[in-house]
Amino acid sequence: MMSGRFITLEGGEGVGKSTQIGALSASLEARGVEVVATREPGGSAGAEAIRTLLMEGSDDRWDARSEALLFAAARADHVARTIRPALTRGAWVLCDRFVDSSRAYQGGGGGITDADILALHRFGSVGLLPDRTFLLTVSPVEAARRLTERGGSDRMGSKPADYQARLAARFVEIAEAEPARWRVVDADAPADRVTAAILAELELWLP
Amino acid sequence: MMSGRFITLEGGEGVGKSTQIGALSASLEARGVEVVATREPGGSAGAEAIRTLLMEGSDDRWDARSEALLFAAARADHVARTIRPALTRGAWVLCDRFVDSSRAYQGGGGGITDADILALHRFGSVGLLPDRTFLLTVSPVEAARRLTERGGSDRMGSKPADYQARLAARFVEIAEAEPARWRVVDADAPADRVTAAILAELELWLP
Repeated sequence: MMSGRFITLEGGEGVGKSTQIGALSASLEARGVEVVATREPGGSAGAEAIRTLLMEGSDDRWDARSEALLFAAARADHVARTIRPALTRGAWVLCDRFVDSSRAYQGGGGGITDADILALHRFGSVGLLPDRTFLLTVSPVEAARRLTERGGSDRMGSKPADYQARLAARFVEIAEAEPARWRVVDADAPADRVTAAILAELELWLP
Repeated sequence: MMSGRFITLEGGEGVGKSTQIGALSASLEARGVEVVATREPGGSAGAEAIRTLLMEGSDDRWDARSEALLFAAARADHVARTIRPALTRGAWVLCDRFVDSSRAYQGGGGGITDADILALHRFGSVGLLPDRTFLLTVSPVEAARRLTERGGSDRMGSKPADYQARLAARFVEIAEAEPARWRVVDADAPADRVTAAILAELELWLP
């Protein structure tokens, strides 16, 4: 029996997902909600070990199929060991990236389809999907500014602007195909305004 | 274009797979065949890193689904980086365990079906199957003697006799369902007799 809420934040690099997870956690905890803030890849001991394999090494360390399987394995561990137990005891899980990031980053490239990614997810994580997913979007100008600020330092590090633009378009496409689960939030706005917009969407589930 | 031959050895622990791989490699090389002797999990840099995750830690480190995905990821890397390149250049690949070990050890347990394992294999390794698979079988008495000799020291280490018996039965079932690919070899016989029996089966492919 699941009684908590499972909320994910999605979007490209530098859209403010981790900042928002922090602010949302604080707000929800102030309302008396137990919050488990987590992120992918990782979020459990096994998934963190797999994360290391995914993040370290050269760009071509893994081919696309091995990489997709490793992401699915990490997610399966994260779901089994962290997310489902938290939801079962009534906690809210706020997760920075989930299966939709695999769909946006990997589905459609290297001969891997969106259906493949979802099939791996059905197998590994018994198809668990969030109750609500927020897509944080920024304008291309703002995205470029933030990426320049942070740089990129691992295998998942920064890619060129046209890659980021295709990725952003892919997220919007995924969100629009499943409007009941997704909310698109303009993350060019100041961080506190973004937090307020997300909280407003969650209000009906709050105690 | 694949011009080499892909041969796998399967069976429970202690049936002599690695001994036979060594003897077969020597015989084939003496016949002028380029041999790539390898084993799973592992056999490529990425797969060896995943092997470490699979072999170390406590028995319950991974749930069955994460474990199946990790085996599939390791196999995908092994196929992409070691097995396919070797076959393409005309080498013979002799592999100690392959997807049939996942089917025997994992398919049917923990809610995971044989169809699930094969679906992961179709995705990760584009469904590559061996040209010939040899199932080495030993009698329960001989199996118990060999297991006592070697002991078990990792997560895949020795399990009780009734587990080994179920596993042996499962291998036979898989082999009998696909007789064109499989040959069952009595490995209670002395090692050199087992090698000769396997070589006899490969004779038609030899130069």
